[in-house]
Amino acid sequence: MPETVAVIGAGLVGCLTAIALAKRDYKVTLFDYRLDPRDQKTIDRNLRSINLAISSRGISSLEFVDKEVAGRVLKGIIPMKGRMIHHLNGAQESQTYGLFGESINSIDRAVLNHLLLDELERIGSDKVQVKFGHKLSKIKYGKPDEFQSCVFATEEGVDQVYATNFVVGCDGSYSTTRDQMQREVRMHFSQEYIDCCYIELYIPPSKNYDARYKGNFSLAPDHLHIWPRHQYMLIALANADGSFTSTFFGPWGLVESLLKSEARVREFLIKNFPDAMEIMGINQAVKSFMSHPKGALMCIECDPYNVSGGRGIILGDAAHSMVPFYGQGMNCGFEDVKVLMKLLDAYDGDRAKAFDAYTRERHQDLTAIVKLAKRNYKEMSHDVTSKVFLLRKKLDHWLGKLLKDKWLPLYTMVSFRADIPYHKAIAISKRQKTILDFIQVLIIAAISLLGYEGFKRVSRRLKQASRQ
Amino acid sequence: MPETVAVIGAGLVGCLTAIALAKRDYKVTLFDYRLDPRDQKTIDRNLRSINLAISSRGISSLEFVDKEVAGRVLKGIIPMKGRMIHHLNGAQESQTYGLFGESINSIDRAVLNHLLLDELERIGSDKVQVKFGHKLSKIKYGKPDEFQSCVFATEEGVDQVYATNFVVGCDGSYSTTRDQMQREVRMHFSQEYIDCCYIELYIPPSKNYDARYKGNFSLAPDHLHIWPRHQYMLIALANADGSFTSTFFGPWGLVESLLKSEARVREFLIKNFPDAMEIMGINQAVKSFMSHPKGALMCIECDPYNVSGGRGIILGDAAHSMVPFYGQGMNCGFEDVKVLMKLLDAYDGDRAKAFDAYTRERHQDLTAIVKLAKRNYKEMSHDVTSKVFLLRKKLDHWLGKLLKDKWLPLYTMVSFRADIPYHKAIAISKRQKTILDFIQVLIIAAISLLGYEGFKRVSRRLKQASRQ
Repeated sequence: MPETVAVIGAGLVGCLTAIALAKRDYKVTLFDYRLDPRDQKTIDRNLRSINLAISSRGISSLEFVDKEVAGRVLKGIIPMKGRMIHHLNGAQESQTYGLFGESINSIDRAVLNHLLLDELERIGSDKVQVKFGHKLSKIKYGKPDEFQSCVFATEEGVDQVYATNFVVGCDGSYSTTRDQMQREVRMHFSQEYIDCCYIELYIPPSKNYDARYKGNFSLAPDHLHIWPRHQYMLIALANADGSFTSTFFGPWGLVESLLKSEARVREFLIKNFPDAMEIMGINQAVKSFMSHPKGALMCIECDPYNVSGGRGIILGDAAHSMVPFYGQGMNCGFEDVKVLMKLLDAYDGDRAKAFDAYTRERHQDLTAIVKLAKRNYKEMSHDVTSKVFLLRKKLDHWLGKLLKDKWLPLYTMVSFRADIPYHKAIAISKRQKTILDFIQVLIIAAISLLGYEGFKRVSRRLKQASRQ
Repeated sequence: MPETVAVIGAGLVGCLTAIALAKRDYKVTLFDYRLDPRDQKTIDRNLRSINLAISSRGISSLEFVDKEVAGRVLKGIIPMKGRMIHHLNGAQESQTYGLFGESINSIDRAVLNHLLLDELERIGSDKVQVKFGHKLSKIKYGKPDEFQSCVFATEEGVDQVYATNFVVGCDGSYSTTRDQMQREVRMHFSQEYIDCCYIELYIPPSKNYDARYKGNFSLAPDHLHIWPRHQYMLIALANADGSFTSTFFGPWGLVESLLKSEARVREFLIKNFPDAMEIMGINQAVKSFMSHPKGALMCIECDPYNVSGGRGIILGDAAHSMVPFYGQGMNCGFEDVKVLMKLLDAYDGDRAKAFDAYTRERHQDLTAIVKLAKRNYKEMSHDVTSKVFLLRKKLDHWLGKLLKDKWLPLYTMVSFRADIPYHKAIAISKRQKTILDFIQVLIIAAISLLGYEGFKRVSRRLKQASRQ
């Protein structure tokens, strides 16, 4: 008899978990409180999604779970090789992400979710069953080796009880699995909201076909577009149909004061994002800004992530919600699945040991990326316009290209090097930062000695010498 | 029409809140999920209480709410003027708490709770109604100025809905009010368990009457007894009947390893607390250690504490659970009530303003005491046996006596000076610590110059001089 598992939450991480466990011969039931999102004619737009950027960790985890599945669900992704900074005067400035042309990839959350649900059907209902309209209300944990009882509220109004060998909670920031786990486990837990509200906006496809981009795009689709304005910013990521999903981020106080009148919103948008308003359509933008849901951003940290005896575990946002500014939320969640499956394989299916090891080994990476994501808000909205930041970034890139694997910019390690765990990436970056600080002092000293022109001459020669 | 308020939780803070609000002409309904604890013939012993020490902040808050109530409920308290340290060799060492004989006071949690419930009945059911057996399951917040709907599960099995102008949550560490508030408010929240388990033990009344103590006490009732053993400790507080409520504190790993056999527990208790075992009875102690519930200790911090528009607020452990090592949990909770009532009075009943001001003004004090309580575990279990600690403590006391209000030991400020807010007490203490550090260096220098005997001679003369 195969062991049974209840996976809670049919979002991205929940679907991938279900696929991975089904491949390991568990009998999987995947529960979600929503109805099947594919039943609706058009893609469900809840008007508060932030487009996803899938990068190395996400892709390698998908491929680890199943290479063919990865191939199918990643077909529509749009590579983005850098940020495009939109200055207030309309000038655009490209800042590449990688050292050697690496890209992160824009992908629509809803589309990816639907494709993963399709993959579950392909596996077959003897191995995976998906039950929509099941809202988890309680988990009664038995002793290790006993069954765990999950209680669901359903449309019929009666509580339904499912007994299962173990539970995997992938039910997001407001996870009921996590709440229920806290009744069984002494869990450290913290949630912190950052003072930032987000509002989804929309750039429609252009009327004109653009041969450069092979599509009706009004902006370069191979960039993540940012309009950084220090205290607030706008971003935009391309969709396959030529449209862009755009998101405004700003402090709650500002948003609340703007929302007092349509005129204020209009004035604010035109003043700060004139070029974006042109392609968005100012009337549509104002309407969306006023009426779309206002999203909150929070950081969640837990410890441990599992119930002893292999009875339950939480993955993804349920365990480590992070703000979206490093583009790592889903990538990290997918990596959770890979890490857990590797441990299950290593311990030969001994869940008790594998889950305990997961908490022990994964914790430092999860807290590291949650902190890093928080820090990156300042970089995206503010630092990208600073001369010193750009100089350091150039130096960092130049050292990376010159020294190859001996010098790795932090962004490269986080986004393009799935082989380097988050906490190691940060440790390496700290060491490199000390060196960069030192070089910066040297440069300042050299400039004051040689004058700026003299310094440029010398550094040009050094650069030439290093190429030879 | 008077405004209605639902107070959730009929524990100590909930009862005091209900009394205070009833006196301000709100129509109060106090809900608790338990049945009336006074209905049971003997006092309900849940076997996991830690005896309370009420000190200046608790007493002054009770008196602020109602002087007569304070007089009646505090009748049975037993003053404790210091700690009694029990060394392993059986020696006892008294360390006084105050500079001028001030005491904290032992009081039984259940007795105090019953007396406060009696006071609510005395006020009359036209002003306060108490509904036991009502377990809060949901709060639906209306717009400001609308009603808030509280949904309760009752014994009858059907959800009961109560509409009220506002809600005050005094429902403890696992507060449902707080959970529900988090659906309405972006609340920072953290919970952290410390690696410490507690087990309630019991010292029965002595068979012999002790004239010194005017009762059948086997230990001095005017002290808080501590058996500090570094990684773990035992404490005991007197009850009016001659018995002591005792509590063991130790790391979870140790407790779990001891619990593997009765023999281990017996050996551990005899080896570490021989004198305590004599008066407890070793068989009874082993049985209690094995069978009594194992309590966890946690710290909770929140921000904010209220829902805007004066719709709801949380007080006491629901807002700031702390570990019991500074004896401030209930004192701080009672002070919450006093602070809130003063603000309601100052804003002339404008709840929206008063609740917002409460969060703004109270937060720094609550985070300060939560941290301080955590730090004090080390002092109680370990530092109290250190020579340097005791020397500094003596110096601190001596400066306090000499300089009066210009030098206040931290313990004095926290426990005996309700007029100094927690965060100010800590700020003052930090300044004094710098001076103590400096004096410590001077003393060490003096001893190495004069030799220890020479130093004692000089310091004796200085002391005499300061008395003249």
